[in-house]
Amino acid sequence: MLTKKWTLSPNRCFDPEPIQRRLAHQFFESISALPLVCPHGHVDPALLADPTARFGSPTELFLIPDHYIFRMLYSRGIPLQALGIPTSDGSPVETDYRKIWQLFAEHFYLFRGTPSGLWLKDELTNVFGVDEPLNARNAGYIYDYLTEQLALPAFSPRALFKRFNIEVLCTTDAASDRLEKHQSLHAEGFTQIKPTFRPDAVVNPDTPGWRENLTKLESIAGREINTYAIFIQTLEERRAFFKKMGATATDHSAATPYTTRLSHQEAETIFTRALTNKLNPGDAERFTGHMFLEMARMSVEDGLVMQMHCGIMRNHNPDIFERFGSDKGADIPLKIEWTKNLRPLLQAYGNNQHFHLILFGLDESTYSRELAPLAGHYPAVLLGPPWWFHDSVNGMERYFNLVMETAGLYNTAGFNDDTRAFVSIPARHAVWRRVACNWIAGLVTRGLVEEEDGYEMARALAYDLAKTAYKLNEMEE
Amino acid sequence: MLTKKWTLSPNRCFDPEPIQRRLAHQFFESISALPLVCPHGHVDPALLADPTARFGSPTELFLIPDHYIFRMLYSRGIPLQALGIPTSDGSPVETDYRKIWQLFAEHFYLFRGTPSGLWLKDELTNVFGVDEPLNARNAGYIYDYLTEQLALPAFSPRALFKRFNIEVLCTTDAASDRLEKHQSLHAEGFTQIKPTFRPDAVVNPDTPGWRENLTKLESIAGREINTYAIFIQTLEERRAFFKKMGATATDHSAATPYTTRLSHQEAETIFTRALTNKLNPGDAERFTGHMFLEMARMSVEDGLVMQMHCGIMRNHNPDIFERFGSDKGADIPLKIEWTKNLRPLLQAYGNNQHFHLILFGLDESTYSRELAPLAGHYPAVLLGPPWWFHDSVNGMERYFNLVMETAGLYNTAGFNDDTRAFVSIPARHAVWRRVACNWIAGLVTRGLVEEEDGYEMARALAYDLAKTAYKLNEMEE
Amino acid sequence: MLTKKWTLSPNRCFDPEPIQRRLAHQFFESISALPLVCPHGHVDPALLADPTARFGSPTELFLIPDHYIFRMLYSRGIPLQALGIPTSDGSPVETDYRKIWQLFAEHFYLFRGTPSGLWLKDELTNVFGVDEPLNARNAGYIYDYLTEQLALPAFSPRALFKRFNIEVLCTTDAASDRLEKHQSLHAEGFTQIKPTFRPDAVVNPDTPGWRENLTKLESIAGREINTYAIFIQTLEERRAFFKKMGATATDHSAATPYTTRLSHQEAETIFTRALTNKLNPGDAERFTGHMFLEMARMSVEDGLVMQMHCGIMRNHNPDIFERFGSDKGADIPLKIEWTKNLRPLLQAYGNNQHFHLILFGLDESTYSRELAPLAGHYPAVLLGPPWWFHDSVNGMERYFNLVMETAGLYNTAGFNDDTRAFVSIPARHAVWRRVACNWIAGLVTRGLVEEEDGYEMARALAYDLAKTAYKLNEMEE
Repeated sequence: MLTKKWTLSPNRCFDPEPIQRRLAHQFFESISALPLVCPHGHVDPALLADPTARFGSPTELFLIPDHYIFRMLYSRGIPLQALGIPTSDGSPVETDYRKIWQLFAEHFYLFRGTPSGLWLKDELTNVFGVDEPLNARNAGYIYDYLTEQLALPAFSPRALFKRFNIEVLCTTDAASDRLEKHQSLHAEGFTQIKPTFRPDAVVNPDTPGWRENLTKLESIAGREINTYAIFIQTLEERRAFFKKMGATATDHSAATPYTTRLSHQEAETIFTRALTNKLNPGDAERFTGHMFLEMARMSVEDGLVMQMHCGIMRNHNPDIFERFGSDKGADIPLKIEWTKNLRPLLQAYGNNQHFHLILFGLDESTYSRELAPLAGHYPAVLLGPPWWFHDSVNGMERYFNLVMETAGLYNTAGFNDDTRAFVSIPARHAVWRRVACNWIAGLVTRGLVEEEDGYEMARALAYDLAKTAYKLNEMEE
Repeated sequence: MLTKKWTLSPNRCFDPEPIQRRLAHQFFESISALPLVCPHGHVDPALLADPTARFGSPTELFLIPDHYIFRMLYSRGIPLQALGIPTSDGSPVETDYRKIWQLFAEHFYLFRGTPSGLWLKDELTNVFGVDEPLNARNAGYIYDYLTEQLALPAFSPRALFKRFNIEVLCTTDAASDRLEKHQSLHAEGFTQIKPTFRPDAVVNPDTPGWRENLTKLESIAGREINTYAIFIQTLEERRAFFKKMGATATDHSAATPYTTRLSHQEAETIFTRALTNKLNPGDAERFTGHMFLEMARMSVEDGLVMQMHCGIMRNHNPDIFERFGSDKGADIPLKIEWTKNLRPLLQAYGNNQHFHLILFGLDESTYSRELAPLAGHYPAVLLGPPWWFHDSVNGMERYFNLVMETAGLYNTAGFNDDTRAFVSIPARHAVWRRVACNWIAGLVTRGLVEEEDGYEMARALAYDLAKTAYKLNEMEE
Repeated sequence: MLTKKWTLSPNRCFDPEPIQRRLAHQFFESISALPLVCPHGHVDPALLADPTARFGSPTELFLIPDHYIFRMLYSRGIPLQALGIPTSDGSPVETDYRKIWQLFAEHFYLFRGTPSGLWLKDELTNVFGVDEPLNARNAGYIYDYLTEQLALPAFSPRALFKRFNIEVLCTTDAASDRLEKHQSLHAEGFTQIKPTFRPDAVVNPDTPGWRENLTKLESIAGREINTYAIFIQTLEERRAFFKKMGATATDHSAATPYTTRLSHQEAETIFTRALTNKLNPGDAERFTGHMFLEMARMSVEDGLVMQMHCGIMRNHNPDIFERFGSDKGADIPLKIEWTKNLRPLLQAYGNNQHFHLILFGLDESTYSRELAPLAGHYPAVLLGPPWWFHDSVNGMERYFNLVMETAGLYNTAGFNDDTRAFVSIPARHAVWRRVACNWIAGLVTRGLVEEEDGYEMARALAYDLAKTAYKLNEMEE
């Protein structure tokens, strides 16, 4: 029925005006062969640690682990259990993956104009060679085709890792993680897969399961963590272990970037109340705000890059949380404030040029108002790329237009894909690189940047800035 | 003096780049003949109920009822009384409509680049055949010409209703309205003119005149409303009546989308205090927030679509309010917060896919941060089109760029003109359809959407989404 | 080594699409010869008062006084003392200006895509005839070349003032300023250099050094200011003096646009507490909010235009403030609220069309939400051009797109360069004029504005609006 082959436009993300488009192509060609630098993401290292690992069925690869995808289907009235999303209590959900795929295909039109739609098309066509748009009629055929492909050695995670030309891939790992997968990968020579220290689960005392998480940390540390001082010492030791395992960065998330300096006494008191489950109102926020400062202090001491991801209300939908758990597409952004909130931390450590503090937020109104001015002044501050919902063509264009004039290109941290969907990595980097090249082409055609400088800017955005920001050159093993 | 005829550009709202412009034309041609769906607006049903109704003079048609127009003149120093705006106390104002029109024409340049300017040009040229730009010299001539036209049967409201190709027109009506005009229209077969249940005047206890409004409700309900339980029962009965009269939706407005669940006891207590004019600080906000939840409950039960219009401070200018009353162009938007405020309502009813909750706000910083993520997750949530000040070319472009990537096209509610200026309806829909087609054309030329999908997206935005969102198919009489 | 001459593109800031670009050129040609109107800025009048004044070395001209420039270098780790920025305590800093220039040149790439980069290129090429991009290799050569140029009479401040075709230049001066430089300029016939009354230092009691500032005011007023009534009377007298000296405007800045009306009693009480250094929490904010109202009252009485610049946290970085003082690139914007905060002031004076209140903010989310609706209603309110960080190509484009549809062009105040960098004035006006013409060209090519109207709009934005807003015609001496 289809007469036109489904292909990615070579012009995608580029302005249609011929001069700008031509320039965008030139810049893109100059950087498209550069390897991918992935300094922040959520790929499971187990996927790469086992040479025999496979992705499973198309449904298990594309849909079930990706809340970007199933939240859109859910928003149009399709129950999560019909999509095979596992329940917290193990009650049964749909397990016929072919049937789920059919449902997905019938609703593929929902992704028109979305970043997920763009990535899916790139993955299906470029990675797997599908040449028809997915729809209700060809769903079964494409499912079978993908199943065949996925069984081939060429589509193992390791084979794709090589094919994707990934130079470095940083995972995100709990403070209590033993990093066994990383150890085994490093033993095999895969030192380009690095852990990132993410201690939120034990640092923010209002995290669901904080006490259990602390118990895990006690277990790995081999000691009881019954005072604030021991808590701090244990975190320092864990950071040292992560650094030894190749980590160059830490990552921290909270609803707000509120930072504050508590006295040792007050920190100890709140920590004790947390241990006995007797937190007062405000305790958790104050302790989390204080721990941002402590984490910055440790970064100044051990050199690990510090990332802050702020401004999201997790699990906005209690019904979904109770039945399916976290990370089910029900996290909703909050407006946030950086100028006042971050001041105590910056006052203490912001003037240290060897400290790298990379900021991420979902409140775009802060781009030009707060984030760019902060990055354009403090030696420590760098701006991370557009995060989560804004990792999209328009999200990136807004970021370039709102951030760069004030922060300056060289106070930004390049791109990171931040994804758990391993197969989408090249698609995401391609969008960033294309939008970046188109943005630079726009500056050149408008007489705002020299063409020769444009090539350097393109390379910086595609490759250099990420490596520098995350100290991936400095700490090369 | 004028040598060039005043005409609307066939390219208006379209990008000048030839490929995108050609595509925009193609999409627009494919949908331009579709009838207009007007699911939310403020047209007076009396205008259509009386077959002999006329619009009056050009000044009475274009200027006096339209606060978009006279607020701009007022902002440049022209007193409202000089424009014939009636005073609250009946003190005299200018009544020489030809003189007012002259004043309007002398200041017509103020509307350059504004949506009102664009609509006025469309109305004057397309609806009335004026072919010179209105100015001080030709004001009288054009006034006389328009006066002649307006006297013709072809320019009666009913004739224009037909000429405008309006498929359905929903009005906005108080909870206490007897809907007599709708009854008489339906008796004549005009079932496509439907009421909308708007109970703010009796629901928000801080509305000026709340007690008098409640008395009107008592009168129509034929009972004393002296308890909260009777209040709720009466609202339920009124909704049933509106539904019987063809309504498919309700509408609710408040300064903030704060929602909360009161106990029956607390609701009763605040209602009693409101009855005795003894509200405590915070009572009105809490009661209004609770009533949002009650209205959502009723919508879940009776199937009426629920609209929320939030984030405006009414009557910002007390001097104008005292002398001329409400809706005089002196309402100023407020920043608002949806993520936390709407959570109690969504927790209760957001997972119900048969419940349609359509959200409207004036704080564009919430588009990508809060509204699109909410719509992209909750089955109940749909986003209304850009409201009020943002019902403009740029306002729509921002909406498309900020909302669609995250919410997805199919979680939006198409267009509604929200106007009391009946003659401006086709102009407003034309702007929406043109900007939508240009946006889609931009996606196609940038390789982000398939051309064939673009036609379906254009039709959805121009026609289908509004009908589905407002259940205008489901409840067809 | 360089084969291509470094020149400004004649197309800079213009859209590449040929029709829009051609129109933009036409509009720009029609206004490019108009003189520059500079109604708000921070040029030191001493520079022009002394006919023998010179700018000093290239480093003293371009870098040391300009926090836009050195904050970018600082953000990348270059200490301010290495850039020759004077310390508060007089401790030594780098004084080898040629060496500092070398450092600047090595980091000139940091300004790619920034407004500073665009202005610097315009200044170096257009004003000084440099024809190679500044870099590490040619730094010394260009330094010597500029040094030669700067010694020539043609590059004296007065010569450049003439060459720049500046019609009027308003400075910003403390309430206690004797305006001796203005007096001497006026005596020589330079009446186009006018003072602006900026009383923040004595009006906001939380200003660092408020008591010392008041003492200066006492000294110039020749009386002790020991009551609120005398304070007010003194301010009124100083305004009268400024007006006599040609001032047409005042300027006021605060972290927030909070306004409130205090009773005389309360104002007196807080003023007394300020005198005795015993302010209570909230006193300073309330007094500042009250003084906004008082300043508006005085403007209604004496006709001086009132400017409000709101929404910046001064001296965010205490370390820099202690070592180098204020205005060192460490001021960070804050989110602000206008709708509620400005209401008391507008309630009192907003309906007075002879009162001009020009608003400036750094929170762009308020453009379409609050500022444009306020300007589009209140006769007194005009919107100032994009301020500070947003005085850039993208900042202006956002301003045009977010403000004009709702406020209307004629409720805006044209452009002002707001600069202390005298030599950058033509570059800044050129960017504004070009972006404005490109914006109008976009409206015309999209069929939204008539071409003939475009010429009037261009002239208004380039010249007329600034003169009218600042009453520079009315009060012409």
